[in-house]
Amino acid sequence: MYGAGDVRIENVPDAIVKEPTDAVIRVTRACICGSDLWPYKTLEPSDTGRVMGHEAIGVVDSVGTDVRTVKVGDLVVMPFAFSDGTCAFCHEGLHTSCVHGGFFGTAEVAGAQAEAVRVPQADGTLFTLAVREDDALLPSLLTLSDVLGTGHHAAVAARVGPGKTVAVVGDGAVGLCGVIAAKRLGAERIVILGRHPGRIALAREFGATDVVGERGDEAVERVRELTDGFGVDSVLECVGLEQSELTAIEIARPGGAVGRVGVPQDETMPASRPAFYNNISVSGGPAPVRAYIEELLPDVLEGRIEPGRVFDRVVDLDGVPDGYRAMNEREAIKVMVES
Amino acid sequence: MYGAGDVRIENVPDAIVKEPTDAVIRVTRACICGSDLWPYKTLEPSDTGRVMGHEAIGVVDSVGTDVRTVKVGDLVVMPFAFSDGTCAFCHEGLHTSCVHGGFFGTAEVAGAQAEAVRVPQADGTLFTLAVREDDALLPSLLTLSDVLGTGHHAAVAARVGPGKTVAVVGDGAVGLCGVIAAKRLGAERIVILGRHPGRIALAREFGATDVVGERGDEAVERVRELTDGFGVDSVLECVGLEQSELTAIEIARPGGAVGRVGVPQDETMPASRPAFYNNISVSGGPAPVRAYIEELLPDVLEGRIEPGRVFDRVVDLDGVPDGYRAMNEREAIKVMVES
Repeated sequence: MYGAGDVRIENVPDAIVKEPTDAVIRVTRACICGSDLWPYKTLEPSDTGRVMGHEAIGVVDSVGTDVRTVKVGDLVVMPFAFSDGTCAFCHEGLHTSCVHGGFFGTAEVAGAQAEAVRVPQADGTLFTLAVREDDALLPSLLTLSDVLGTGHHAAVAARVGPGKTVAVVGDGAVGLCGVIAAKRLGAERIVILGRHPGRIALAREFGATDVVGERGDEAVERVRELTDGFGVDSVLECVGLEQSELTAIEIARPGGAVGRVGVPQDETMPASRPAFYNNISVSGGPAPVRAYIEELLPDVLEGRIEPGRVFDRVVDLDGVPDGYRAMNEREAIKVMVES
Repeated sequence: MYGAGDVRIENVPDAIVKEPTDAVIRVTRACICGSDLWPYKTLEPSDTGRVMGHEAIGVVDSVGTDVRTVKVGDLVVMPFAFSDGTCAFCHEGLHTSCVHGGFFGTAEVAGAQAEAVRVPQADGTLFTLAVREDDALLPSLLTLSDVLGTGHHAAVAARVGPGKTVAVVGDGAVGLCGVIAAKRLGAERIVILGRHPGRIALAREFGATDVVGERGDEAVERVRELTDGFGVDSVLECVGLEQSELTAIEIARPGGAVGRVGVPQDETMPASRPAFYNNISVSGGPAPVRAYIEELLPDVLEGRIEPGRVFDRVVDLDGVPDGYRAMNEREAIKVMVES
């Protein structure tokens, strides 16, 4: 990506092991993420460009001399953040704050919308899968690299549990995975805020019990009508705009919780006073998806959840620029890249 | 209070039982609260004025026909919010969101810087004390009406627990009670941010282990130096200004928690992105002090905590205007009003 709207497919030097803790994986599946659309809309033009993409499944091609657990030939999930797996934060399950960690697809570390990707801290980062490379479950397994774990993180931050009423703000792939996560954690009622017919239909199949198509004050009023006038226990904020954060706080019940996973686009958070006077907790952030894979994997492998259904378009590498366009125009929910 | 800086002592009609669920108490002890200083600085002038004060101990003088548990002659603590004790929120321990609740010292309900005060929802609101009216513990018991419970709420919202590192932003009476609460909940290290010598000395006696007198970026750097570079697990925000909220978020460790009890003076919350990228939880609000009295009372009665030491000035009703002045000029930490 060389700037807003400017995505090119180019030949670049091969990814190689640079540090002894690195691995290089041959990417078999990658995706375009809703968060990639922020730079797609706003990135300043540059001459060097950025190799995008932070979600992948691939086969380990080479490893550095210090890599112990990951083996050449392993099929692995690559979470969107790399992490050493050994620092205090990794031990606490907050791998996205790893002291030796970082993020793929940034100016510093090349991303996975590519034939191959260098993975720092390979032992801590990669999760080996015991499935075949052509397994029908690959799309769902691919969501373990970001959107399923991110939806789950929103639900955890929003304190979803058995019997809770939940609202999901945003009907993108993360919001849809938030519905899956909320249902999986026992939510009794799940209200999705969105208006795109295809996404809403999928949200219902994933477990949404109510749909609110209104926006702003009307949406707040409608959610309150659905919940005895008080709002929901848990709100999953899966957008990151001022308006969606405002709505999230306003539809939370007193004492409720907002779990934010939409990357915030503003310096400040709205509705400080409503949040305060109603004792609403606001938490969340980049999901430590590495920490969640073990918990979520069995439900994927046994087909109890089907997060891979968020992929409604598949492209090859040459199709990535059009994939960005399609997601940006909301033609596609989420695009999978097959190499 | 007729406007900013304009506090008058006047004869007004006697407080009387208006609703069958009301009680009237003769106020024996009241206080001036740090939060009273916000209107003291900014209240628009009015002809009618507002009877201020929301913290009291008193003797029940009369009760309405529906009052069952509170009896004439009882010595009671009056929390700063009234609540029915029976609604869903009261059952959840969030009495400050009671569906029949409200706040004393507002335009709607007269306050306790007075000879007597009408208490709505008397059965749910008042807590009867089994001590004598002249008990030496009265100052400490009086803090159960607000500042001790508020400091405790900040600590609970900030997830203080055994072994945690804690910072307290603000050296007012609530901040000092936050130190008491953090120590009581098992904090290993308690950093107080403040620079007033008398308050800092008291904070140390209450259990603060470190003092940071710097402000802004320097304070953040100093707290990080004290905590291996990462910040503290728990921050008690006891001020409510943009700068203090910003500092609170910036000194929290990744995955840490900020508990807000300072009444926010701005529409927005600062540092949305730092809070997000570090997965910091921001919660808190008006403390449900009624819910906390039973938990905190034994430690007060048995002298294990001495929150009454925050009162460093005592006035009679005629001295209230000067009490406001003294607190506003930081001459006094907290003023007790004896009738």
